[in-house]
Amino acid sequence: MSTTDPDLVSLRRELHRKPEPAWREFYTTARIVEELQSRLDLDELHVGPEALASDHRMGVPDEDALESWYEQARDHGADEDVLTDLEGGYTGAVAVLERGEGPTVGLRVDIDGLPQPESEDPDHLPVAEGFRSEHDEAMHACGHDAHATIGVGVLEAIADSDFQGTLKVFFQPAEEVVGGGKSMAKSDHIADVDYLLALHVGLDHPTGEIVAGIDGFLAVRHLEATFTGEPAHAGGHPEQGRNAVQAMATAVQNCYGIPRHSDGQTRINAGVVEGGTAANVIPEEARIVAEVRGETTELMEYMYEKAERVMRSAAEMHDCEVDLEIGADAPSATSDQELVDVVADVAGGVEGVEHVLERDQLGGSEDATFLMREVQQQGGLACYVGVGTDHPGGHHTSTFDVDEDSIGHGIETVAGAIERLGHSRP
Amino acid sequence: MSTTDPDLVSLRRELHRKPEPAWREFYTTARIVEELQSRLDLDELHVGPEALASDHRMGVPDEDALESWYEQARDHGADEDVLTDLEGGYTGAVAVLERGEGPTVGLRVDIDGLPQPESEDPDHLPVAEGFRSEHDEAMHACGHDAHATIGVGVLEAIADSDFQGTLKVFFQPAEEVVGGGKSMAKSDHIADVDYLLALHVGLDHPTGEIVAGIDGFLAVRHLEATFTGEPAHAGGHPEQGRNAVQAMATAVQNCYGIPRHSDGQTRINAGVVEGGTAANVIPEEARIVAEVRGETTELMEYMYEKAERVMRSAAEMHDCEVDLEIGADAPSATSDQELVDVVADVAGGVEGVEHVLERDQLGGSEDATFLMREVQQQGGLACYVGVGTDHPGGHHTSTFDVDEDSIGHGIETVAGAIERLGHSRP
Amino acid sequence: MSTTDPDLVSLRRELHRKPEPAWREFYTTARIVEELQSRLDLDELHVGPEALASDHRMGVPDEDALESWYEQARDHGADEDVLTDLEGGYTGAVAVLERGEGPTVGLRVDIDGLPQPESEDPDHLPVAEGFRSEHDEAMHACGHDAHATIGVGVLEAIADSDFQGTLKVFFQPAEEVVGGGKSMAKSDHIADVDYLLALHVGLDHPTGEIVAGIDGFLAVRHLEATFTGEPAHAGGHPEQGRNAVQAMATAVQNCYGIPRHSDGQTRINAGVVEGGTAANVIPEEARIVAEVRGETTELMEYMYEKAERVMRSAAEMHDCEVDLEIGADAPSATSDQELVDVVADVAGGVEGVEHVLERDQLGGSEDATFLMREVQQQGGLACYVGVGTDHPGGHHTSTFDVDEDSIGHGIETVAGAIERLGHSRP
Amino acid sequence: MSTTDPDLVSLRRELHRKPEPAWREFYTTARIVEELQSRLDLDELHVGPEALASDHRMGVPDEDALESWYEQARDHGADEDVLTDLEGGYTGAVAVLERGEGPTVGLRVDIDGLPQPESEDPDHLPVAEGFRSEHDEAMHACGHDAHATIGVGVLEAIADSDFQGTLKVFFQPAEEVVGGGKSMAKSDHIADVDYLLALHVGLDHPTGEIVAGIDGFLAVRHLEATFTGEPAHAGGHPEQGRNAVQAMATAVQNCYGIPRHSDGQTRINAGVVEGGTAANVIPEEARIVAEVRGETTELMEYMYEKAERVMRSAAEMHDCEVDLEIGADAPSATSDQELVDVVADVAGGVEGVEHVLERDQLGGSEDATFLMREVQQQGGLACYVGVGTDHPGGHHTSTFDVDEDSIGHGIETVAGAIERLGHSRP
Repeated sequence: MSTTDPDLVSLRRELHRKPEPAWREFYTTARIVEELQSRLDLDELHVGPEALASDHRMGVPDEDALESWYEQARDHGADEDVLTDLEGGYTGAVAVLERGEGPTVGLRVDIDGLPQPESEDPDHLPVAEGFRSEHDEAMHACGHDAHATIGVGVLEAIADSDFQGTLKVFFQPAEEVVGGGKSMAKSDHIADVDYLLALHVGLDHPTGEIVAGIDGFLAVRHLEATFTGEPAHAGGHPEQGRNAVQAMATAVQNCYGIPRHSDGQTRINAGVVEGGTAANVIPEEARIVAEVRGETTELMEYMYEKAERVMRSAAEMHDCEVDLEIGADAPSATSDQELVDVVADVAGGVEGVEHVLERDQLGGSEDATFLMREVQQQGGLACYVGVGTDHPGGHHTSTFDVDEDSIGHGIETVAGAIERLGHSRP
Repeated sequence: MSTTDPDLVSLRRELHRKPEPAWREFYTTARIVEELQSRLDLDELHVGPEALASDHRMGVPDEDALESWYEQARDHGADEDVLTDLEGGYTGAVAVLERGEGPTVGLRVDIDGLPQPESEDPDHLPVAEGFRSEHDEAMHACGHDAHATIGVGVLEAIADSDFQGTLKVFFQPAEEVVGGGKSMAKSDHIADVDYLLALHVGLDHPTGEIVAGIDGFLAVRHLEATFTGEPAHAGGHPEQGRNAVQAMATAVQNCYGIPRHSDGQTRINAGVVEGGTAANVIPEEARIVAEVRGETTELMEYMYEKAERVMRSAAEMHDCEVDLEIGADAPSATSDQELVDVVADVAGGVEGVEHVLERDQLGGSEDATFLMREVQQQGGLACYVGVGTDHPGGHHTSTFDVDEDSIGHGIETVAGAIERLGHSRP
Repeated sequence: MSTTDPDLVSLRRELHRKPEPAWREFYTTARIVEELQSRLDLDELHVGPEALASDHRMGVPDEDALESWYEQARDHGADEDVLTDLEGGYTGAVAVLERGEGPTVGLRVDIDGLPQPESEDPDHLPVAEGFRSEHDEAMHACGHDAHATIGVGVLEAIADSDFQGTLKVFFQPAEEVVGGGKSMAKSDHIADVDYLLALHVGLDHPTGEIVAGIDGFLAVRHLEATFTGEPAHAGGHPEQGRNAVQAMATAVQNCYGIPRHSDGQTRINAGVVEGGTAANVIPEEARIVAEVRGETTELMEYMYEKAERVMRSAAEMHDCEVDLEIGADAPSATSDQELVDVVADVAGGVEGVEHVLERDQLGGSEDATFLMREVQQQGGLACYVGVGTDHPGGHHTSTFDVDEDSIGHGIETVAGAIERLGHSRP
Repeated sequence: MSTTDPDLVSLRRELHRKPEPAWREFYTTARIVEELQSRLDLDELHVGPEALASDHRMGVPDEDALESWYEQARDHGADEDVLTDLEGGYTGAVAVLERGEGPTVGLRVDIDGLPQPESEDPDHLPVAEGFRSEHDEAMHACGHDAHATIGVGVLEAIADSDFQGTLKVFFQPAEEVVGGGKSMAKSDHIADVDYLLALHVGLDHPTGEIVAGIDGFLAVRHLEATFTGEPAHAGGHPEQGRNAVQAMATAVQNCYGIPRHSDGQTRINAGVVEGGTAANVIPEEARIVAEVRGETTELMEYMYEKAERVMRSAAEMHDCEVDLEIGADAPSATSDQELVDVVADVAGGVEGVEHVLERDQLGGSEDATFLMREVQQQGGLACYVGVGTDHPGGHHTSTFDVDEDSIGHGIETVAGAIERLGHSRP
């Protein structure tokens, strides 16, 4: 039996049943809004386009995809008024509690699911307990259902506390495509935030462990290269073709061969490739969907410039054109020691928390970094918190699940730190 | 105004309106059968599985594809009895006329369309005269509608002639995927054929030109390689992946680099490739759909063996598995001089034929070669005939069309040659 | 016991003992000049620079190499007067016999050896009979010792015949690097040639076989690409390098992947590569020595243009510069039927010749094509003759040798054809 | 005017004039031995094979190279008795001073030069002051002449001090090929060492700066792959070749593409490649001299295993054999904080030292790590010290030089630390 508030466990399971990928969190946003309105007396609630700097959305899917998920959310009974606000893929919300004089504290939680099927194994808890994903091709495989729930829980906890100041909770869409962070960071809501917290469950830390200050976010950028050549009959006139697949294969090989950098870790991945139409036609078109990363934003830029050079030269080598589209990106970021200290100290006193770690490396990317850097650049402080949870399968695998006790640990740690920040600047 | 029999022009246009790709020629077969039965008193008519060696069908699409085209043929009003015979993609027919003592002469015509849309240009004759394809994703872009019509016309012409012997016309499905020739070549119907003719319209020869003896068929084989590795988070743990796209790219580069052969022309093409699921995941799976060709069957085999070695080593290099599936193939073949002489001689006397060429090179592949070689191996003779036709767009392009006069030229040339063969062995 | 004149056998063995590679045929030229002067009453004898269009020499080695072979020729006792003429690598000679009114007939024979050691196997005839190469790193492994000898023999035979006209024998240097043909073709001596013959022994034809009309010379061009990047410490700062070896490897892979051409055979080979200085330094420089070929000069040009594009793009891909040097080349050529007929007819009557073939394909390259095309372009006729010889090892291998009977066959066939040409134009 | 002892400056310049690469330090060793014997009353002096575990020498050059440098050392007047000991490339020495009860302290200095020419620029100090390298193809371009001199200076300083304990100075050969460290680490002389110091001048630190505790040594391994295929005439029969250069190019491309590792920095470099014999021959042989590195020994092993897999599969892909030879290697290592503290403290008091840094990253490799790890594994402590020196050109460039003041700084810092260790364990 979980020590977490049963209502919040229910909410988490409901969200788990209806996972929605990036910019399609129609049902999810509507459900969060509904929950907040029924439980809390908020001072402000900004929904959809009101919560975002619309020009900065990245990685938005095409209209057909948006439309079909929108209709599905309606079929599931999502609130029509909220839905209307979200039309066109403007998902997410910002909830504000004002509690007198004091600093403005932000908490960012992400809410999107992943485009992958969930396990049907009877031993998989969501199957055993009946809250497996109802969507064939989507799953909460990274715990954002728990994150959204923690966001709600923290608002409730602070509402009931003697916190002095303002609390803003950012329910952010589209983290999985690093597409939503920037549009929240560039919205008006971040401008007065003095302290920003963000969090993630799991990351190979067990239930009962809290990490104060996760660093090592890799800066990331997505890019898509489309090579266009000339088709030709592969038997009759191979010399008349300009082979886009040869260009693509050369680019793939040489992208992975970009020199390592002595300043730190770098990454490149040609994650999706495709090309050609038939065995007997010299391929006219080919495509690479790739990403580059770096331990710093500069290292990511280094990789991007090299990758671009490779793509362009590979096209030229095979007499093809290449169209390069830059996709979403996210910078690196570092937690501030002052906040790390507060979080570590509070976490030590939370029931069920047996181990508090100071600082750990993520090794992946996260667009919470946009909000963290925005706050830091305007003179504020930021800290990313890890909330340990036993997870049977790895992140992004079909058997991922969250130990629901950790939802309570997350709420108490974060709410405790916020309360502390509300009393005296650290 | 075409000099070709208006009924046959009508038939050709009707077939043109309902193009059906490989193994889905349900309406086409039914329509041919109906036409033959209404016009002729055939001695035998073998339909669908009766016309084929079923084990030797190659490149058959999956059941869903078969089913949807089957239903469409029914919707178009195809004869239900014939349709029943064709169920499961056993399309095509063999029509037999017996006219006393004499040699058995075979004529092979192919009947399938291509999976590509037809031009909507108002200047495109099928648009202007209202017989453009009714199927969005299919078109007779290689003249097989004319070939089928010629098959019917030749049967009629011979029925009315004093030919002595037996005529078998093979209405062959699935030439475009070199998938149907072998199953007709391995059927019982070929066993007693003394002379085999096959034909093709166009091939850059203008109306009024006949080519007696097309050679230079490249032997061809299709293959599909599926590479399987291990996915991993591209930012967090790239070293835990086994990258199927790297294996694929290495294979593509090295396949194109297989040494040229001094014995003659060879070809390779990685015509379709794809791999990976998302930018941030090390690709677990990748696929190459390729073909190899050679001026002789041996040269094609040389290319195949090298390609197989490349695929396997590329997989091993990146610690992946590879599953290699051999697809359809077709051998090379050569026309026999004795038949070339007969065809050339007859063609010279056909009205409208202004130029007779002896021998030309195709440079592509054709599975009529299976039938030609089968007949030659059992001691018979074979000849492939080119029937010139002005075609505004190239073969396999959206504006391809046939000058209908050439249908008459084809019928008269082929029927004339068959008649000659029926009187005295050449 | 050979049926060939023993003096000529002696001459051939003497040349075999002193093989000299391209543009270093100092001893060889001097020895041929000496032989001609002692045996014949020539009308003209042009030696070294007098025999060549000096600007058109290709593939000339550096001065040190020329100098050391020059000194060696002097040490072997080559005639000092001739040597003086040859200084700087102007080797070869043109010998002229004038025999009254009549056509001018040219015969081209090549005289250079190869830079490779000869077998020491006691069963290798030159070892057994004591005429193995005295030069460690050179060998007559392609029969040019026999060719030079045939040139001398033909001059003698014609001197003793009733041939009417002018005979010019071109003792051409540097065929093995396709470096000498052009400079002879561009010399004044070719301008009045009406008929040109060239010949080669062996080519897998046995003793007793003559091929009238060898075709299928592949046009060829040499090229050398030097990639220059930037070195860097491979451990400390790999990102500061611009890796010339990566550029080179990419170029090699993509050069071999240049599309095959439907017009005929093409070739490419990255025959020599090198790069880098030490394991721990990012390579600053790399080099490819390559050649492209084609069944026609156009096909060779096609390959060259593609290769150039690959080299340039590969350099750009790795931020390197590339310096492309075009080396020697040779065109394709075809024998004229009129001369083929004459040669075939004469060969049929030569004692020891048991089989006369009309036309065969070489599949390699030869710079005799420069002379053939020059003559053909000025309205003359040309024919390349194959003189069968049993050769125990393949061409360019250490156990290659010539059956000396074939020297006689070559002389009689060629002299016979020349005599016939001197009587009446064919 | 340098503050360093003029005799030691002289010694350094003498060594600079006679640089000798790995395992060829015949003159250098003899000169060091002579200097030690004339200046000091050593308790033990182990020379050549006595100083090494002979089985563990790595990267020893061939006999011809050893022989010619040996003869040159003799020509320079090196002591014959010492030379005799060094025969076969057993260079280096271990000098021992025993000064009563107390810990055994080791100091390791390396003594080899680099195989590269020294600048002739008149502004280059060794040119201006007449001590430029007398060897055309060798240079002290990494300051090991200064290291050897510091070794001698420290022995003198300790001999004159009240140090209690034993001092062993390891004059190590062959650091530049990471070939000598292991054989000294595996010798008996290391077994009783309680504290080990090693040092390097320069590394971009200016004169007056001391780094206490250099870390970040990359573990390294050298490897050499030789690919063997089959030659063939590139025009006549390309299909008969098995192309070793294609195998090599594929291997190069895929080696650079080995996945980055999330545990830390990795490196790979194909530093030297070569292959083939002539433009017109399909290359029979090709070679890659490469190295792999990793922030830890495990990461280096990861790279090695992947590289080996790539080499083997690339060979198989092109039907070649590959012979893989593992060359020298070196592990990573870390300085112990206790010694870092001692060195930092002592350095702060050395005249001329203006800046003491604690810990810095090398980013390269060093085989001092073998000795450091050996001592650490037997329970001792180790520390690597950086001695700042203004160097006009970078390490391993032709204008590298050492500010001779830094020799004094090095001696005083190291001797001071040793003295401190002799009084009380830290």
